[in-house]
Amino acid sequence: MKVKISFMTASGLKSEVTVDRGTNLLEAAARAGMAVEGNCGGKGSCGKCKVRLRKKLPGEPFDVEKKFLSPAELAEGWVLACRRTADEDMEVEVPEQSDAFRRKISLTEEEPAVELEPAVRKIELALEQPTVEDQTPDLERLLRRLPEKHVRVPLRLLAKLPQVMREDNFAVTAVVSAERLIAVEPGRTAERLYGVAFDIGTTTIMGSLHDLNSGRALAVGAATNPQNVYGADVISRITYASGGPDNLKRLQQKVIEALNGIIKELARKAGIKRHEIYEATAVGNTTMSHLFLGVDPTYLAPAPFIPAFRRAIAVEAAEIGLDINPGGQVVVLPNIAGYVGSDTVGVILATGLEKRRDRCAVIDIGTNGELALAAGGRILTCSTAAGPAFEGAQIKYGMRAADGAIEAVRIEDGEVILKVIGDAPPRGICGSGLIDAAAALLKAGVLEPSGRLVDPETSGAHLPPSLKARLRPGKGGFEFILAGKEIAAGGEDIVLTQPDLRELQLAKGAIYAGLQILLKDVGLTEADLDEVLLAGAFGNYIRKESARAIGLLPAIPLEKITPVGNAAGRGARMALLSKKERARAEALLDLVEHVELSARRDFQEAFIKALAFVSVKLL
Amino acid sequence: MKVKISFMTASGLKSEVTVDRGTNLLEAAARAGMAVEGNCGGKGSCGKCKVRLRKKLPGEPFDVEKKFLSPAELAEGWVLACRRTADEDMEVEVPEQSDAFRRKISLTEEEPAVELEPAVRKIELALEQPTVEDQTPDLERLLRRLPEKHVRVPLRLLAKLPQVMREDNFAVTAVVSAERLIAVEPGRTAERLYGVAFDIGTTTIMGSLHDLNSGRALAVGAATNPQNVYGADVISRITYASGGPDNLKRLQQKVIEALNGIIKELARKAGIKRHEIYEATAVGNTTMSHLFLGVDPTYLAPAPFIPAFRRAIAVEAAEIGLDINPGGQVVVLPNIAGYVGSDTVGVILATGLEKRRDRCAVIDIGTNGELALAAGGRILTCSTAAGPAFEGAQIKYGMRAADGAIEAVRIEDGEVILKVIGDAPPRGICGSGLIDAAAALLKAGVLEPSGRLVDPETSGAHLPPSLKARLRPGKGGFEFILAGKEIAAGGEDIVLTQPDLRELQLAKGAIYAGLQILLKDVGLTEADLDEVLLAGAFGNYIRKESARAIGLLPAIPLEKITPVGNAAGRGARMALLSKKERARAEALLDLVEHVELSARRDFQEAFIKALAFVSVKLL
Repeated sequence: MKVKISFMTASGLKSEVTVDRGTNLLEAAARAGMAVEGNCGGKGSCGKCKVRLRKKLPGEPFDVEKKFLSPAELAEGWVLACRRTADEDMEVEVPEQSDAFRRKISLTEEEPAVELEPAVRKIELALEQPTVEDQTPDLERLLRRLPEKHVRVPLRLLAKLPQVMREDNFAVTAVVSAERLIAVEPGRTAERLYGVAFDIGTTTIMGSLHDLNSGRALAVGAATNPQNVYGADVISRITYASGGPDNLKRLQQKVIEALNGIIKELARKAGIKRHEIYEATAVGNTTMSHLFLGVDPTYLAPAPFIPAFRRAIAVEAAEIGLDINPGGQVVVLPNIAGYVGSDTVGVILATGLEKRRDRCAVIDIGTNGELALAAGGRILTCSTAAGPAFEGAQIKYGMRAADGAIEAVRIEDGEVILKVIGDAPPRGICGSGLIDAAAALLKAGVLEPSGRLVDPETSGAHLPPSLKARLRPGKGGFEFILAGKEIAAGGEDIVLTQPDLRELQLAKGAIYAGLQILLKDVGLTEADLDEVLLAGAFGNYIRKESARAIGLLPAIPLEKITPVGNAAGRGARMALLSKKERARAEALLDLVEHVELSARRDFQEAFIKALAFVSVKLL
Repeated sequence: MKVKISFMTASGLKSEVTVDRGTNLLEAAARAGMAVEGNCGGKGSCGKCKVRLRKKLPGEPFDVEKKFLSPAELAEGWVLACRRTADEDMEVEVPEQSDAFRRKISLTEEEPAVELEPAVRKIELALEQPTVEDQTPDLERLLRRLPEKHVRVPLRLLAKLPQVMREDNFAVTAVVSAERLIAVEPGRTAERLYGVAFDIGTTTIMGSLHDLNSGRALAVGAATNPQNVYGADVISRITYASGGPDNLKRLQQKVIEALNGIIKELARKAGIKRHEIYEATAVGNTTMSHLFLGVDPTYLAPAPFIPAFRRAIAVEAAEIGLDINPGGQVVVLPNIAGYVGSDTVGVILATGLEKRRDRCAVIDIGTNGELALAAGGRILTCSTAAGPAFEGAQIKYGMRAADGAIEAVRIEDGEVILKVIGDAPPRGICGSGLIDAAAALLKAGVLEPSGRLVDPETSGAHLPPSLKARLRPGKGGFEFILAGKEIAAGGEDIVLTQPDLRELQLAKGAIYAGLQILLKDVGLTEADLDEVLLAGAFGNYIRKESARAIGLLPAIPLEKITPVGNAAGRGARMALLSKKERARAEALLDLVEHVELSARRDFQEAFIKALAFVSVKLL
């Protein structure tokens, strides 16, 4: 039996969907394209997927709803979507779609310096007209004029070739990539040759459009990865995809739709037609690569974390429904391991890591912290399960870096100074704010190196009264009031709890310990590092000194720590603009040594040591 | 606006179709899958597409209907489908589906002797289980065990690979063809490996199923080419296909459906599953190859007769909807020119023509007579537009070789002796009967070498009275009564008319003249021929002495004329069973010299000379 669910926001956005009776509301919202936040992917542990039942009240709330929702919310009919099913026709209000988190991407970002030599190229040909003396068939008439000796020809092109060749009297433009005929167009079109590069993040997808004749970037765009309704992290999405081919298909469609949206926008901005885009490159973590191609990611989740593939995969755009020229190639760069994806390959491309002769580490801080270390002619990589603390999840007042997020914290003379994104009343704290806060509290003596907040009566007796006043008993210890309710947007105190700090310890400890293992495997210590690069947008926002002070980054001089921005995306662009860079990416597969930390007892030891809130060296 | 047309036969076969108001009834019948004969493809010139309107009488008949239908038929509501449109909901009776024409195919037909080495092969693999020490991804785990270094992997296979590999604990069977992964199956399945070979004729499609491990033929099957509702000959079908992509698609679907019907039947007979068929080969004339692949054949029809392609084309079965394993390769052998198709390539393969050191011609008699000549290390081919006379079209009482067709004619002591297929009362005359009749009439002096039937009063005054009595004035001269109405099935005399004999002259003259040109081009005459092979089923039925007597075949000793049956189909099977034979087929493209007769003035001269009803030598 089917039921009809109408979703709406308070501001009037609407979407209706018909689903089987009994379908989970989170799932139904996803199908309706109404993104409901849900960091835990429907497990009932994050409390973020709240929706309001409009037609009738939901009856007695579940315990988990009581835990996450206020009495006022419960009284108004708010429930957790993941706990509720569509039992009859329903009207469901979802919170306003918040897509306004911090995305500073622009054309001014440093462009990669590559030798322009795209894989796809156009060849204008004035073919001889057939005669009774020269009855060469259309296909052979075309191919004999191409420099490539063995060109694969999709049936789709062959089927229409006779008309296309005669449309402009045997003047045609052939589009060729990697010994494959991409398109044949009537007339002379060589000057219109475009490509797109994508960085498919678990949270955010970024794309850029390039003129492949000049290498110039024409437009950039971004979108939230709409798979987020199936969970914020890759494990939730793998779990959902494992539910069957329909689920996998749905996740694939979500990401393809997002990319198509970006493509449409990029083409509009640049004033070109989508079919004039003949090639796309993409990077992403290994799970994103699998889902983008519709490949079963099930065995990425359990040990021993086996991907379906490693090599670069090239498919026709038509095969996955990407809205560029249907014959265009879509190339997903190779991944290294289950948790070191083509995004890391992109980072290595962009930073030239394998060409460096000094000792250099790259750290990409995120839910999975990916690390790479180049030293002594070797490149080692590993990934660490840092957890989503840096993205604000599992933190009581954690949020993404959107308006209202506390992004910086200092304590001076006993006073807490906050910097809030958008200069708005604070709503919560984002990753860079969290690191800053921990470093500031540590320095002020509010936080002990062990990770414990001091008791203002005993261990914190020496603190100035202004700080003591901000400490109060909370769950699992004390909690520290970052912003009082008098200035906070929600009308309640924004606090940092003892469990919040424990989450941060686990996250930073994992990343730091991972780096220690890579260094150990090449016989070095952190003092030997010539440079540490911080990849990813997050690296641009964190304060290096804070990150070093809490032991997230190694204890090396600050000038040796360099943020490099979205290096993964730059790698995707380099592979779009240059066949050589693409070949470099594939060659990396033989070069990179992946270190599987889960198999290493010494990692466990290093991790435990690294939990303390100071860099190991300073202990 | 849509209307519903119910088609039925007198015996109760029914099919309904909904079409746009105004759709031609011939077209509607085609969509309903109710084959109505129509040799002229809807031009109104053959009069064969008669159907009966059942619900209401059709009103005043058109002139063309009066020409082809008897007053009794008109009174009963019979009309020509090609002249009528579906203007409202209608019930339309179509003649009984006559599919019973002569098809003697069986497993006993001589099997080609080839070295068994199919392109597709199965490799059973017991793969190592992944561990934390060996995290090789699934695809690379599989590929590293395959002997082929560069194997292309369809995304469809990669998407499901993780499940397939774990279904039988990493025991899998890989199916590989031409450096492409066709399928991966759980467990050990190497003993089940099948292939199909097709000969796609304009009129009849034949298929055979083979065990590719043993080379053994397991079953054969055939079907009428259901494109026949769009015209009996290739020109009609090209004309229809040129009407737009929908028309082309429809023609492709027709032939694919027919092949799928044969495949289903073959699999049933042999007790195998369709997905266990991993490869298909096909031959056909150039038009059939284009239509089978859905490639626009428009420019085959007008001079200079340009095909879209020449080379062998390999596509995935899924791409054209052929019901074998979706990853299975479908290989259409190369064609030589617009009117010398892969069927001729198949004939050359099967007869080993390019390996012969003597002088040998192959003649495939049909609507297009295809000729090949091997001599002095060269192979020449040409095609001649013989017209459909040998298939019974354009002949007043012409019919295909089905029950009731006069297939042999002798005249002894002034008596006409007929042989009728199925020992039934005669309904008409088929190709072999026509040749026989002409030869017999020529010998008896009823037919002059010029092609004119004698006037019993003047030029035929010497004839015995029994023959004189069979001559009577008719359209354009006299006509000869082959079977009187007292024995004929239709209750009226079956006659051979003067125009019938003119049609025959044109047909046989074209083929004979074509051979003369090929011989001339290698500096030989027909006396130099060591052998003439008659390819095609028709070659098995025609009486060599009659064909030689009327100048269809060259004037060489009968023992040098050898029917070789369906050599084209044998060629397709050879290419299925052996990669070497397939490579031979592709090598033929460089070897064969095609002679375009339409460009040759000397062909016109030879043709005019060859119209006379004796072989040129005997003149």
